[in-house]
Amino acid sequence: MMRTRPLKVALLGCGVVGSEVARIMTTHADDLAARIGAPVELAGVAVRRPDKVRGGIPAELITTDATALVKRGDIDVVVEVIGGIEPARSLITTAFEHGASVVSANKALLAQDGATLYAAAEQHGQDLYYEAAVAGAIPLIRPLRESLAGDKINRVMGIVNGTTNFILDKMDNSGAGYSEALDEATALGYAEADPTADVEGFDAAAKAAILAGIAFHTRVRLDDVYREGMTEVTAADFASAKQMGCTIKLLAICERAADGESVTARVHPAMIPLSHPLASVREAYNAVFVEADAAGQLMFYGPGAGGAPTASAVLGDLVAVCRNKLNEATGPGESAYTQLPVSPMGDVVTRYHISLDVADKPGVLAQVATVFAEHGVSIDTVRQQGKDGEASLVVVTHRAPDAALSGTVEALRKLDTVRGVASIMRVEGE
Amino acid sequence: MMRTRPLKVALLGCGVVGSEVARIMTTHADDLAARIGAPVELAGVAVRRPDKVRGGIPAELITTDATALVKRGDIDVVVEVIGGIEPARSLITTAFEHGASVVSANKALLAQDGATLYAAAEQHGQDLYYEAAVAGAIPLIRPLRESLAGDKINRVMGIVNGTTNFILDKMDNSGAGYSEALDEATALGYAEADPTADVEGFDAAAKAAILAGIAFHTRVRLDDVYREGMTEVTAADFASAKQMGCTIKLLAICERAADGESVTARVHPAMIPLSHPLASVREAYNAVFVEADAAGQLMFYGPGAGGAPTASAVLGDLVAVCRNKLNEATGPGESAYTQLPVSPMGDVVTRYHISLDVADKPGVLAQVATVFAEHGVSIDTVRQQGKDGEASLVVVTHRAPDAALSGTVEALRKLDTVRGVASIMRVEGE
Repeated sequence: MMRTRPLKVALLGCGVVGSEVARIMTTHADDLAARIGAPVELAGVAVRRPDKVRGGIPAELITTDATALVKRGDIDVVVEVIGGIEPARSLITTAFEHGASVVSANKALLAQDGATLYAAAEQHGQDLYYEAAVAGAIPLIRPLRESLAGDKINRVMGIVNGTTNFILDKMDNSGAGYSEALDEATALGYAEADPTADVEGFDAAAKAAILAGIAFHTRVRLDDVYREGMTEVTAADFASAKQMGCTIKLLAICERAADGESVTARVHPAMIPLSHPLASVREAYNAVFVEADAAGQLMFYGPGAGGAPTASAVLGDLVAVCRNKLNEATGPGESAYTQLPVSPMGDVVTRYHISLDVADKPGVLAQVATVFAEHGVSIDTVRQQGKDGEASLVVVTHRAPDAALSGTVEALRKLDTVRGVASIMRVEGE
Repeated sequence: MMRTRPLKVALLGCGVVGSEVARIMTTHADDLAARIGAPVELAGVAVRRPDKVRGGIPAELITTDATALVKRGDIDVVVEVIGGIEPARSLITTAFEHGASVVSANKALLAQDGATLYAAAEQHGQDLYYEAAVAGAIPLIRPLRESLAGDKINRVMGIVNGTTNFILDKMDNSGAGYSEALDEATALGYAEADPTADVEGFDAAAKAAILAGIAFHTRVRLDDVYREGMTEVTAADFASAKQMGCTIKLLAICERAADGESVTARVHPAMIPLSHPLASVREAYNAVFVEADAAGQLMFYGPGAGGAPTASAVLGDLVAVCRNKLNEATGPGESAYTQLPVSPMGDVVTRYHISLDVADKPGVLAQVATVFAEHGVSIDTVRQQGKDGEASLVVVTHRAPDAALSGTVEALRKLDTVRGVASIMRVEGE
């Protein structure tokens, strides 16, 4: 049954992920051939620095001219693991134009220009697969867009950035502050020299955009995602969280509004109860919690980054795309038929944990409570602690729109008796 | 782009799962049509008792003649949720012969005759999908056979039976014995009137056979799976587990041997460390832990049974199979190219926790230790507790073949100083 002409794969990028993809394509060639129904051959590898040694890849396959490689005309599948917007975008569209399907791990590009890429793929009858773009090795894109294709997904909530989870887990376990935990993450290779994309939530926001689009069958772009980093989470926040039976995680949350007529997508640190499955996700692991009408609550857990795990996701897509090529078919394309609008952060309804530094004198609590009431934010619990004329008030609210909470905090800051707002944190997963 | 002639679906069985499938097909018809690219129509429902009221299904669709329904010739997809071997097997093969693909939730049939069904599907160019057969709503079959198609899976270890997990979780939390916990499970509807299939591990064994076959690309039949139920797990076992920082779960474990030349599949209760992700799977939830060469450790978690969750899995498959029909293609068929043999339980290598009732006199430990040594089973720790001339010895071993452990226990029983073997439990997940 097996076809003898091999399927030809062009690899764009040969860093941590690309070199693993090339390695596994070589060492597991027989398995891949059996699973696809035809052999696959690495036909070319485009890199920026050809002098850098790459174990196991024949020198004659290496080129610096990525455009010429994708234009060769005999390439069946292009694997793009360069990252970033350009030249990745141009190379991918060129690949489609020249009859190649594309497997990509490029979350930034998919979050920004997914619709354009999907349209190009469809126009040329090619596949666009990108399991590796979200949560590394964890099968997530395929379960969402295929396994749950007969269900209605209401919420996707996940830890989709390993660097920040490592830092927060370290802070939680050791009582360390943010800087100290970041230093450890950097020393161990979990954080990059410039950690901005991770700690400011840009990476997670790109993944949230991709997940929201797939989950709700609508278009969600990076700009639609509300984003707050986790650099201001303190040891005091973790102490407060513990008192509530919670921990703190940087979460990507994609929700369908209660009326079903809009969706939201956001990334921010949040308290979650220790009993929630996401609370026990340690170190640099990722996990995504999915709530669907019929399926109920599902969770997907695993390594969210790293060369080999990401390569596993790329190769799973490669097998699928190659099988589609042999079948002269394509897999699922963009599904954006619901055209649900993305609501702003102010419309998100959730709970809040607010720490205030206040004057330690009678009547302060009454003043503060009045401000909450005036903004329609109902208080669940208040904890008051005083010492030396200073006091702190910790308020936990019932569910309220984010805009109402913002208004409340603005008004609180204007009170003479409120010396400062020490922290505001959302409470999720209850 | 949308085709107007609907795809026709025949539903075999309309119990807890089937009625949910029918309900969602009606209430979510527009979503399903958009996701498939063509409308789907419920063309007939075969039941045994047509008088039983079934909300929402037009009476003219209901028939007692399942065979005539699958032979009609205009059916695109048959959804089989009858369960059991016959008539399900004949109906499925008849469906293939008459040009229909099949979505099944029938674990018993797939574990016993999967190869025959796959061959029939391939012969007639049809699809056989069965996500719902293992772990209900949890996307597992598709991730294993598609997402991880480019990776090498070494172990699949899971809680795949909700009834027994509910009972064990109850025993763990309340200190209840097996009978008491079973009674509660029955009262709450988690256990059937005759719980044999669940508590004796037959249900889990069928799922283990299916998972092992997919994970290792070989044929594993129900008879190949070693099976031990959980009816003999006691409150004392849970107390011992706690002392070791463990809990007890009924696990389905599929492993590739260290030399890669064979596989094993087994179901039995086992101690696992509280730190293992499977330890915190509560109530009737299921979870499956997968270890692969490149991906590392993954876990899939969710509801393992119930009408709506199982229907979610069925409908995800229905969308995929319908899309394949429109593409005139088929999805992945059986992948059994490795033809790895299934080794017997004696070849499984793991650790053991053994409780012995012994005479409380000098020299007993030396005798017992000698027996372990003679059988090549290395002891990790021993805990000795004595009172009133009686004593107990708790031995935890290093990794050893199951056959060596069985030989050890047989020899221990023959010692005059050993009054009885109170329990033997495997220790996994370390």
